[in-house]
Amino acid sequence: MKVLVVGATGTIGQAVVDALSARHEVVPVSHRQGALRVDIADQASIARLFEAAGRVDAVVCTAGAARFRPYASLSDEDFAFSLANKLMGQVNLVRTGASAVADGGSFTLSSGILSRSPMPGSTAISLVNAALEGFARAAALELPRGIRINVVSPGWVTETLRALKMDPSTGTPAAVVARAYVRSVEGADTGKVIDALGPA
Amino acid sequence: MKVLVVGATGTIGQAVVDALSARHEVVPVSHRQGALRVDIADQASIARLFEAAGRVDAVVCTAGAARFRPYASLSDEDFAFSLANKLMGQVNLVRTGASAVADGGSFTLSSGILSRSPMPGSTAISLVNAALEGFARAAALELPRGIRINVVSPGWVTETLRALKMDPSTGTPAAVVARAYVRSVEGADTGKVIDALGPA
Repeated sequence: MKVLVVGATGTIGQAVVDALSARHEVVPVSHRQGALRVDIADQASIARLFEAAGRVDAVVCTAGAARFRPYASLSDEDFAFSLANKLMGQVNLVRTGASAVADGGSFTLSSGILSRSPMPGSTAISLVNAALEGFARAAALELPRGIRINVVSPGWVTETLRALKMDPSTGTPAAVVARAYVRSVEGADTGKVIDALGPA
Repeated sequence: MKVLVVGATGTIGQAVVDALSARHEVVPVSHRQGALRVDIADQASIARLFEAAGRVDAVVCTAGAARFRPYASLSDEDFAFSLANKLMGQVNLVRTGASAVADGGSFTLSSGILSRSPMPGSTAISLVNAALEGFARAAALELPRGIRINVVSPGWVTETLRALKMDPSTGTPAAVVARAYVRSVEGADTGKVIDALGPA
């Protein structure tokens, strides 16, 4: 399969590229590096990406930013940014990209555990993650030509916790998180939220 | 308790007003009728509402519009409208209104069964409903002064099904749906999605 991985230079994205490369033709896409770039918050940028990429069998998105900030200090702009980037950026990747995806192909988006297990500071992210899960469950019923869609919900990633100087032992290694994306790409699921949690 | 009911002239809102009126001072608010009006998509309108209403113990919102339309014909404007109205309208009711709510008071918002049980045409609504549930779970951790927040998720309402000339026997009567709002206002739950489903 030819698989577009959007967010390929991120911690999870790199692990997804590694996991898929053995069996598939992976086309890495990122925001600021490499031959193919996209700003998912910009619909024209998404359209240019799919024109440049041509026909693909699967699209994986591990990109998308949302604001982590105490509830009381979340501004209108924090909500607007989070909706425009992590939420509608991924929604528009599907809306614009579906015509470039082969019959029976798939989209795999990224939400996160804060959807269902929030923490102080996560209000905007929890909203966005939950919205992505609702979107995928519903869009799965109507995407044309057998195109599937799932959302992977990663827990805290070991490498990220280590970079933040938090306890990495509570995290899931990126390579384990990547298996959930592989399952979505290679399997038959659609409309599912696939949890990516657990030890190596 | 003094309870502001936003959306008081809707099918569910009227039933909530009826259910709360026996034991509480209910202040009805609607978009286009009555002494207190609000356009929840307009933050200035929300601010004026709370200035006019004064101190309240609880805010219930049964208002909020989102677009029901086949996936393929959902436009950018359909998503933007749905996000600005049913989603951010209710989020901003909480953000702006919390300072008017008494210590230990509550917000009760409205999502809907399409969050978890989508149907063709529900993509924008499913996204918005799920987002509201993620918002409430997270905001509950950080609202000040013991203020609680829950989301009621109504199933199909018997009266609405009848108005749409659909089979009303599969629905939940508005008076039964209203009990979930009463439970949120009078109980101790916070951060919960309260299903409002079932026969009379």
